[in-house]
Amino acid sequence: MQKHPFEQTAGLLSANNSKIILLVLDGLGGLPGRPHGLTELEAAETHNLDALAKEGSCGLHLPVRPGITPGSGPGHLGVFGYDPLTFEVGRGALAAAGTGFDLQPGDVAVRGNFCSLDEAGRVTDRRAGRIDTGTNRRLCEKLDAIELDGAELFVQTIKEHRFLAVIRGEGLADDVSDTDPQQTGRKPLDPEAQTPQAERTASVLAQFAERARETLAGDPPANGVLLRGAANKPGWPSFQKVFGLHAAAAAAYPMYRGVARLLGMEVLPQPESFEEEIEQVKERFDEFDFFFVHFKPSDSRGEDGNFEAKKEAIQKVDGFIPALRELNPDVLIVTGDHSTPSQLKAHSWHPVPALLWAPTCRPDPVETFGERACMAGGLGPRFPATDLLPLALAYAGRLKKFSA
Amino acid sequence: MQKHPFEQTAGLLSANNSKIILLVLDGLGGLPGRPHGLTELEAAETHNLDALAKEGSCGLHLPVRPGITPGSGPGHLGVFGYDPLTFEVGRGALAAAGTGFDLQPGDVAVRGNFCSLDEAGRVTDRRAGRIDTGTNRRLCEKLDAIELDGAELFVQTIKEHRFLAVIRGEGLADDVSDTDPQQTGRKPLDPEAQTPQAERTASVLAQFAERARETLAGDPPANGVLLRGAANKPGWPSFQKVFGLHAAAAAAYPMYRGVARLLGMEVLPQPESFEEEIEQVKERFDEFDFFFVHFKPSDSRGEDGNFEAKKEAIQKVDGFIPALRELNPDVLIVTGDHSTPSQLKAHSWHPVPALLWAPTCRPDPVETFGERACMAGGLGPRFPATDLLPLALAYAGRLKKFSA
Repeated sequence: MQKHPFEQTAGLLSANNSKIILLVLDGLGGLPGRPHGLTELEAAETHNLDALAKEGSCGLHLPVRPGITPGSGPGHLGVFGYDPLTFEVGRGALAAAGTGFDLQPGDVAVRGNFCSLDEAGRVTDRRAGRIDTGTNRRLCEKLDAIELDGAELFVQTIKEHRFLAVIRGEGLADDVSDTDPQQTGRKPLDPEAQTPQAERTASVLAQFAERARETLAGDPPANGVLLRGAANKPGWPSFQKVFGLHAAAAAAYPMYRGVARLLGMEVLPQPESFEEEIEQVKERFDEFDFFFVHFKPSDSRGEDGNFEAKKEAIQKVDGFIPALRELNPDVLIVTGDHSTPSQLKAHSWHPVPALLWAPTCRPDPVETFGERACMAGGLGPRFPATDLLPLALAYAGRLKKFSA
Repeated sequence: MQKHPFEQTAGLLSANNSKIILLVLDGLGGLPGRPHGLTELEAAETHNLDALAKEGSCGLHLPVRPGITPGSGPGHLGVFGYDPLTFEVGRGALAAAGTGFDLQPGDVAVRGNFCSLDEAGRVTDRRAGRIDTGTNRRLCEKLDAIELDGAELFVQTIKEHRFLAVIRGEGLADDVSDTDPQQTGRKPLDPEAQTPQAERTASVLAQFAERARETLAGDPPANGVLLRGAANKPGWPSFQKVFGLHAAAAAAYPMYRGVARLLGMEVLPQPESFEEEIEQVKERFDEFDFFFVHFKPSDSRGEDGNFEAKKEAIQKVDGFIPALRELNPDVLIVTGDHSTPSQLKAHSWHPVPALLWAPTCRPDPVETFGERACMAGGLGPRFPATDLLPLALAYAGRLKKFSA
């Protein structure tokens, strides 16, 4: 018998008026900028975060499993309490979340690549020379205008050679194989139905690939498309249902807005700045039980390999902590979705600093918010990210006692 | 595929003459009495426990799962090595354990509430005005005298409006629905069989509810009964079978005696004091492999919200440690079943201090027995409570090497 993925809290939820804030500094975890040096977070001057750490419980979480470097989707699902190995999201649906496309039940979303084809229709470049995003937009407008028999089509730019295609209609299913031959010199594959239910989808996608070739014929190097990861909107239990929390997401980037939307969170209007995000939380504080607040630059500067800029990004967030504390939340969690050490210029598998502040936290020895300090914290040096939400519920008084 | 609940030790047991003592200070874990202050355990003068901590391995355990506040049943099952989410005990069976009723296989136990009914038989108060325990005793004597067709009946007082009813006879099963309508203004529901096997049980319980109304007719406000949580004695593998330990329980309170009995431990005669409990262990030390020794006041004083009294209760136990060490046990574990911070006046989800003493413990940095100190211990700041028993077996030399 498979265990209920939310067995920890299932049946114990008890509503109250408490407020929980989850502040995610994307890619928060880091590495020292030089041997024996400090990490970006340790080097940052973060008096406000340090004060929270001193009063709260600290530790480092594992977003997925030991050694696993998470993408943005799984990284966020973990801190939202959804085990990323149980709640795997198909590439197409994640792409839809990433562009902010409002995927409906029954829609089939696929990730597309523009590719280059020779006269015989064989792939000569699987990424069409990595065309620029501007060209991509121009081509996606053309593709979006294609008419399909018995299905609606939506095509949207992702970036460079990548786009999102969504088909909408009766009787579509997502069990369809990829068309990417994974090597040059071969023709794109036909999409194949893996189940009888998906036969119509396979033929609609084949039609799309064919009409795309016709439409793009005069546009080398991007004169063909490869389709991957057909996926429906996942039928996951909503955050409201699973944790009993009416949740809002304050986030500027489409990917994070999209993941929040997949869980049924209310996504607040697109903010222009992090300051505006914090303002949104303030203004709507009475309306929701839970706020997911997302900050992107700590990840972006890590990916740039810019230690100083990542440090400064973290310092910037520190300046907004008093504004959040003034709201008097019952629980305030500050963490990341994964590590992005500037030394690696990429996401990494390293555990992610986490602090949970609430009035009933048991004191631990942590006095500053940093990777080394958190290793001595009460949450432990490698706790599962999915522990954060049940803990937040407990500290918010939202879980009844288990049995007598 | 479900994992074997005792896969860690299954097949590796190896008997010897070692002795293990598990001392449970109920509700041991706490919180500071004032901001930045010490917890009850940290504030207590516990030279003997500190000496054990210094020589042993320390940590903090999670009784059930992160964020979950355990009741007394699950809290004890965890430290006994039985995962409380796998070994869920029905309310009726737990009530039987709690009153010390010796539930037999095939018996069906239910939790009863005295309730108030109006002339039309509708519930006007689901708790009969929370009648006092003395009244409850008088009424339970009446109910206990009811004769049922083809089944024996036992009725025992729990407390206030709550009682235990047990039916015994051929062909009884526990898949019967509750009769509590969960709201006033409605008649009690009929008990309904959820499986064909439970049909006789449903009719016997319906008969009991009806005769109880007749018997109580002249006794407002408690003139009816509501029945919940019908449950057989759980058919769990015994402690002896699972861990190869002939176990004795020294405990004063019915609930803890009952849980030990559910696992097949021999429950020693009712002691008058904790001192007598320790004497029992001394006197019977040669007879058993394992002793569960229970101390209640640390929990009771925590529930009272009395920091000083909880601290003193812990100090009292400290005074008995030398007596236990004189017995020369091979393994001595001191922990709690859950936290009961006096600040919260209730059980809580906070991890529970634990120390395991044995001659082969690897030294860890812990020099005193307290929440913060234990965070740096070799057992870690958040280990599953169910790890304790396999560790005890290992330190007692009772587990063979796994494979070659």
